[in-house]
Amino acid sequence: MAKSLLLFFTCIASVLLQTSFAAKTRHFKWEVSYIYASPDCNERLVMAINGQFPGPTIRAKAGDTIHVELKNALHTEGVVIHWHGIRQYGTPWADGTASISQCAINPEETFVYRFEVDKAGTYFYHGHYGMQRAAGLYGSLIVDVADGEEEPFHYDADFNLLLSDWYHQSIYDQMVGLSSKPFRWIGEPQSLLINGRGQYNCSLAAHVAGGTSACNVSSKDCAAVVFQVLPNKTYRLRIASTTSLASLNLAIGNHKMTVVEADGNYVEPFTVNDMDIYSGESYSVLITTNQNPSSNYWLSIGVRGRKPNTQPALAIINYRPNSASKLPESTPPITPVWNDYAHSKSFSYKILAREGTPKPPPHAARRIAMLNTQNRIDGYIKWAINNVSLALPPTPYLGSMRYRLKNAFDASKPPESFSSDYDVMKPPTNANTTQSTNAYVIQLNSTVDIILQNANALADNVSEIHPWHLHGHDFWVLGYGDGRFGEKDVSKFNLKNPPLRNSVVIFPYGWTAIRYVADNPGVWAFHCHIEPHLHMGMGVIIAEGVEYVKRIPKEAITCGMTGKMLMNNKLP
Amino acid sequence: MAKSLLLFFTCIASVLLQTSFAAKTRHFKWEVSYIYASPDCNERLVMAINGQFPGPTIRAKAGDTIHVELKNALHTEGVVIHWHGIRQYGTPWADGTASISQCAINPEETFVYRFEVDKAGTYFYHGHYGMQRAAGLYGSLIVDVADGEEEPFHYDADFNLLLSDWYHQSIYDQMVGLSSKPFRWIGEPQSLLINGRGQYNCSLAAHVAGGTSACNVSSKDCAAVVFQVLPNKTYRLRIASTTSLASLNLAIGNHKMTVVEADGNYVEPFTVNDMDIYSGESYSVLITTNQNPSSNYWLSIGVRGRKPNTQPALAIINYRPNSASKLPESTPPITPVWNDYAHSKSFSYKILAREGTPKPPPHAARRIAMLNTQNRIDGYIKWAINNVSLALPPTPYLGSMRYRLKNAFDASKPPESFSSDYDVMKPPTNANTTQSTNAYVIQLNSTVDIILQNANALADNVSEIHPWHLHGHDFWVLGYGDGRFGEKDVSKFNLKNPPLRNSVVIFPYGWTAIRYVADNPGVWAFHCHIEPHLHMGMGVIIAEGVEYVKRIPKEAITCGMTGKMLMNNKLP
Repeated sequence: MAKSLLLFFTCIASVLLQTSFAAKTRHFKWEVSYIYASPDCNERLVMAINGQFPGPTIRAKAGDTIHVELKNALHTEGVVIHWHGIRQYGTPWADGTASISQCAINPEETFVYRFEVDKAGTYFYHGHYGMQRAAGLYGSLIVDVADGEEEPFHYDADFNLLLSDWYHQSIYDQMVGLSSKPFRWIGEPQSLLINGRGQYNCSLAAHVAGGTSACNVSSKDCAAVVFQVLPNKTYRLRIASTTSLASLNLAIGNHKMTVVEADGNYVEPFTVNDMDIYSGESYSVLITTNQNPSSNYWLSIGVRGRKPNTQPALAIINYRPNSASKLPESTPPITPVWNDYAHSKSFSYKILAREGTPKPPPHAARRIAMLNTQNRIDGYIKWAINNVSLALPPTPYLGSMRYRLKNAFDASKPPESFSSDYDVMKPPTNANTTQSTNAYVIQLNSTVDIILQNANALADNVSEIHPWHLHGHDFWVLGYGDGRFGEKDVSKFNLKNPPLRNSVVIFPYGWTAIRYVADNPGVWAFHCHIEPHLHMGMGVIIAEGVEYVKRIPKEAITCGMTGKMLMNNKLP
Repeated sequence: MAKSLLLFFTCIASVLLQTSFAAKTRHFKWEVSYIYASPDCNERLVMAINGQFPGPTIRAKAGDTIHVELKNALHTEGVVIHWHGIRQYGTPWADGTASISQCAINPEETFVYRFEVDKAGTYFYHGHYGMQRAAGLYGSLIVDVADGEEEPFHYDADFNLLLSDWYHQSIYDQMVGLSSKPFRWIGEPQSLLINGRGQYNCSLAAHVAGGTSACNVSSKDCAAVVFQVLPNKTYRLRIASTTSLASLNLAIGNHKMTVVEADGNYVEPFTVNDMDIYSGESYSVLITTNQNPSSNYWLSIGVRGRKPNTQPALAIINYRPNSASKLPESTPPITPVWNDYAHSKSFSYKILAREGTPKPPPHAARRIAMLNTQNRIDGYIKWAINNVSLALPPTPYLGSMRYRLKNAFDASKPPESFSSDYDVMKPPTNANTTQSTNAYVIQLNSTVDIILQNANALADNVSEIHPWHLHGHDFWVLGYGDGRFGEKDVSKFNLKNPPLRNSVVIFPYGWTAIRYVADNPGVWAFHCHIEPHLHMGMGVIIAEGVEYVKRIPKEAITCGMTGKMLMNNKLP
């Protein structure tokens, strides 16, 4: 009796213990609507979640399930939310990409996103329909290590910095302009934002940086962001960029930063004075508050990679117990010159996998070269990959491929390479391109190398930065190079400690090589994360093992041909 | 043999004859998208059809079938088109009202509107989702008499004038502002447009109307509209107003107008110097070009019923062979003072049915009094009918009622009257109201009287004009009155020659009585045609004989609960 009681209590204790360590399901009820806000002290419509901009931060632990009931409370527009960096193993319909993983959620409708966050890291979420990300539809998603696990570095506390850029022109104007003939470019952003706050055409540091005008911060929406620290502690800054266009550089006055995470993967720590961050990337850096504690310090972000026409954004590192309103006496860090690509490359090249990171398979079964070019179709300006500019079909791929619908998209195979005599240093000799909804079909569990090849744009002597983001996977960055990729470059691939990432940049006139394992049945976007570039067709669709995708929730496929089939009871 | 041949040829001839007289099906392929245009010389996004603003004019003959394949080429928004004034007998799903007769058409989807235009007249079409009408989504629909029929008046040629107002603020801004706390009113329109053209803050007649600034008409989008006439002819001007807010007055220098049609029904001709036209109304007037033929003349429209902050719009009546660019030497007609309601009433009261117009049944089986009040809900400003502000449900009524779905909308009965001690001359004593999706259910083929009762708004001494429009029917206007409607007013109803219309105004602090026969199975909106007022809840839903509605095309009910049921194969 005593023995069985003991067993009973042991069982109870074990259940309790398991429960306290077990993964949780975290429930959220969200509504997307427009609000009036002044992110940069100028009032505009801003896309908000539950009236908040940026949207609420999700904080979870590795292994947790996130359950978001997303209600579309916009008046006439559809909406979706993409969970950037979450691989969605087993839940490809929850990737939140309109026309790819699901139908846009109609006004007044609710869609449930339910997925596991299987890996600790710094992530974010954002709209992935039209250019709704640029309207402010984004927020942070922070995944801590599971209970009982530890990060491979120490810190006393962490801060979250979601970086973005901001336009005064509505996204409708932007979208129509980009799709117009003559073409209307959106131009440089009016402001940069840190956690949704910035200041238009003025500087918080005007008192020390002579010649710039001071900010009249009349709204709390656009007051300086303050990070309160104690002296002699270590802080983890979680930094993600969801800019529409801008490539950024971040630096903190007097403080060095040690980079420890990139896109939800640990990297071999390295220390820098400033760091570049491209749209779609996330990083964690550690800082030690070992400077004169009687001062506060500036954190500054500025534009790189394009000739800037946007003021840097500033935040304050507030050493307690100094007043937060005590502006730093030193001038803010100066952003490196926009076209100092050597500086940018030096940073990117330093990012290597931390020991213990899974290594890439030694060989790839397939190599796809993707030439990124700017082109024309019937006078409209587009971006294209191997001369195919991406158009999205009315029926999302995941449903149409899963149910083998004919004519839901262009069934042709997109090209795997481009002409051997293409001169990447010059404008395209034939600027015309085609538009297609075709997709790369990848053998499930095969290893694929993709060579992203940059080139000259339509104008002479112009080649831009493009940060590419892959949905549903991490990939290894095997290497970068200048000019055209060649067979000789294969031998230089880093197979020893290539970083695992979900986003990577191609530098002007350069190439970037990545390797990934197609181990996630679904249909996935792989695209330039610059919002107007994607709108102009700069992306591809990758499908793998779609026949193994489990039953897609009907709510994800109510539109287009799958919607019609559902309604005629013709889907299994 | 000769006889049978003769018979054969007689048959052939008869078939040919019938064919030439037979109703046609007129096919249209339309795409809705935004374009950049400058309706008032200031460039904005404009909602266009096939790249045209206003949309293409449909011209048909009574008895024809209109077949419009409408593709939504907007980036992220749904769309519908309402065929204003067309009763949609037997095709209630083609009425083009989002949330009422159909689901909004999603981007990249196509919906077919197919309906008969059974009655000659001057009609128009427009968006009926969110405030898309105010974004420019409208055009004319002109129905001529059937072959072999004749209009009951003579004219040599006709012109079409589609009148509208125009805002520089986007409809997104407008919608969010109206739904915000604190409330943001859209203000007066920046410009008035004739056939989509106007001039912002300037006058084409500056050379004769001292003190106003001349227009710099740099774009053909906003050049003066010119109507070319020959001397001593009779012209029919077909005039319709699809303004968002403005009540208008139209006059032509030196020319009288004889009103002959209102809302697709003939009226007893009467002659005026100027005419009022409210949003949702259409008229035909005859003019005779009997003035000095060496001059051209102004046609002017100006704002009435609200204190104007918008310049009149001008068009030119160009007596050929004068040059069209020869501006009239006389000053344009002056719009009557905005609050001269006696003038407005005088015009409205003159509108009486032409002999031969169907007469109303002598008695109504039911009378519904509808008190129009401005109210608050939780601090949001709304308009309400009998203290119920209309909210539209996610599942369109037509489908949910036809298939008897529970909980698709509020099943409560809306009130048929209002408190007997309500003082219409004062602000509401209890400003709070409720919001509901409930609907008036009307016995099929019964006769109903509706008393539209105006009242004081929230502010003291304010009562506004509201032009109400009924879908799916014409109604008889039995009378108007000042102050609160009373039983004594019934005896004054005009049952002899009340005009048949689909739109009618209620004057400030007044009432308007209408009678209609519920002979059209379907679900129909009845609402104030002022776009922001409808957005703020100023409308009701009327359902009649929904059980007799034939099979609704699936494409109309793919959303909300009907969509779910279709997908689960649960609809008959």
